[in-house]
Amino acid sequence: MMSKPIVAMTFGDASGIGPELVAKLLARPEAAKAAQIVLVGDPWVLEEGQRIARTNTQVKTIRDWSDARTNDGAPILLATDTVAQTDIAPARVTEAAGRGARMALTLCLDAAKRGDADAICFAPLNKLAMKKGCMRGEDELHFFADYLGVQDYFCEFNTLGNLWTSRISSHIPLAEIPKYVTKERIQAAARLTYRTLRNAGFAQPRVAVAALNPHGGEGGTCGREEIDIIEPAVKELNAQGLPIQGPFPADTIFLKARDGLLDSIVTMYHDQGQVAVKLLGFERGVTVQGGLPVPITTPAHGTAFDITGQGKANAEAMTQALLLAARLAAPRPS
Amino acid sequence: MMSKPIVAMTFGDASGIGPELVAKLLARPEAAKAAQIVLVGDPWVLEEGQRIARTNTQVKTIRDWSDARTNDGAPILLATDTVAQTDIAPARVTEAAGRGARMALTLCLDAAKRGDADAICFAPLNKLAMKKGCMRGEDELHFFADYLGVQDYFCEFNTLGNLWTSRISSHIPLAEIPKYVTKERIQAAARLTYRTLRNAGFAQPRVAVAALNPHGGEGGTCGREEIDIIEPAVKELNAQGLPIQGPFPADTIFLKARDGLLDSIVTMYHDQGQVAVKLLGFERGVTVQGGLPVPITTPAHGTAFDITGQGKANAEAMTQALLLAARLAAPRPS
Repeated sequence: MMSKPIVAMTFGDASGIGPELVAKLLARPEAAKAAQIVLVGDPWVLEEGQRIARTNTQVKTIRDWSDARTNDGAPILLATDTVAQTDIAPARVTEAAGRGARMALTLCLDAAKRGDADAICFAPLNKLAMKKGCMRGEDELHFFADYLGVQDYFCEFNTLGNLWTSRISSHIPLAEIPKYVTKERIQAAARLTYRTLRNAGFAQPRVAVAALNPHGGEGGTCGREEIDIIEPAVKELNAQGLPIQGPFPADTIFLKARDGLLDSIVTMYHDQGQVAVKLLGFERGVTVQGGLPVPITTPAHGTAFDITGQGKANAEAMTQALLLAARLAAPRPS
Repeated sequence: MMSKPIVAMTFGDASGIGPELVAKLLARPEAAKAAQIVLVGDPWVLEEGQRIARTNTQVKTIRDWSDARTNDGAPILLATDTVAQTDIAPARVTEAAGRGARMALTLCLDAAKRGDADAICFAPLNKLAMKKGCMRGEDELHFFADYLGVQDYFCEFNTLGNLWTSRISSHIPLAEIPKYVTKERIQAAARLTYRTLRNAGFAQPRVAVAALNPHGGEGGTCGREEIDIIEPAVKELNAQGLPIQGPFPADTIFLKARDGLLDSIVTMYHDQGQVAVKLLGFERGVTVQGGLPVPITTPAHGTAFDITGQGKANAEAMTQALLLAARLAAPRPS
């Protein structure tokens, strides 16, 4: 029997729903079956999460990563001391919670670098708290990429079951989108998407590129990027042996995906994909930090301060994030 | 008993699924119940549609609009001679079909001007055929507005049951969208949306404006249009007594609408709304030509040449388009 991949998990922002989500996840049999879970965080956070979630999964506490590989497969906690309960408050943005979340993630990244962890899965972060807590980079993806020394193209994937979307531009003003629509970025995103889906177990990923303009530019009468940039980029990829499809108009490409005709869509901008993905199933969405040397996943939703501590947070996306991290960590034929 | 509104209907492009859709619609009891239907078109087109749809609704043929008001309520056909069967072919774009569709619509517009028709509902057109058939204007909405002498703001509404979306820009390249994001256009679209929903029977329409940039601009760090233009436009409307909400980020505003918290969304650009509307229910969508002196509706889908003549076209949107035309034509308290 092949041993399970080691997935390092963090509680995310301890003031949000992360701890209770992790507690609920631990209680699901499929979680421990898919991965050797190594929780990286403070014991009191786990206890608090289990109290809120009303779960009581037995977790063995270890102090060193070397104990993880030889464990019997049950979830273990690598106990840290990153945040004091008295320094934070439920449903509040604090520098202390942000710093603690960042420190736990850094320990996971270090473990991945050393080969002690095969993948990382983290519960929701609060972006503002992370910045107060000295996260460098514009978001966690840039923080990870910087910390891991990534030079190549990287981007976030939004996944929903078997539908993956990536994008060539992200948190930028709409007015700047056209600047990002270059052959180089489209090809880099499409290649990364194809490769990542192969790693996720798609034998022959069906990847399509979305158009930029309404109705795909209507033959050049409504914008020329499709004719001048996107189509040539796709044709070159095809000539190189990558079966990328498109460009397809944005308002119908997601119908194809919903109907199971596509596995992945490379979108041109944030809302082009996010409007669709959130409508198709916000609660189940998982974000994959693509293009990094170690698989990193997280639920697409946030810290949900409005329902923190009530024990009613839905752990479906958290569970899917763990299962996907385990799947991406498993060795694949290249 | 209040008399039913007179809705003038056309078969749209006779080479597409329009004739069979109209034939199916006539066979639905709710159609004749909601409106005094006056079909404006060639008898052979109706016969052909009924042959394909395998329906046989009795339709009285009249030659003059004056007979419509005194009719008993059953569907009637105002027989025209706009297109010869030998000049067109199923599932083909032809100048003859486009010209015929345009002529029938013109007769309906004339009737509306005279007060002989209270609303217009047309089966799908083919844009290319319409242009070959000498339609002036960039699309049918501009053709209608020009023909009816409209000077004020007008725009298309995409409706799906009780969700209405309008937009401040439409068939333009994405790069030009920011030019359209002006206080004047936002306010004109929001006012028209509010007024149109009142006419459609919403006592207190819940109308919200979408943001332009990802996450609504993230407090100005990701685009300033929300702060500089959209929010001030909404605040001014509020000060004038119009309870317009927003701006809300594009990727979550449609979740609010889906969950029944909003009746209408004023979008900033074509795909912002269309990605969502098509995912929420492409088959049921109805387009309303907003801001014209007469209500005009049509199914959101097209001529569907790929299934023309097979009798399997879904008449749900066509039926909803007729019912909505009748609803918009009915007198309301202003």
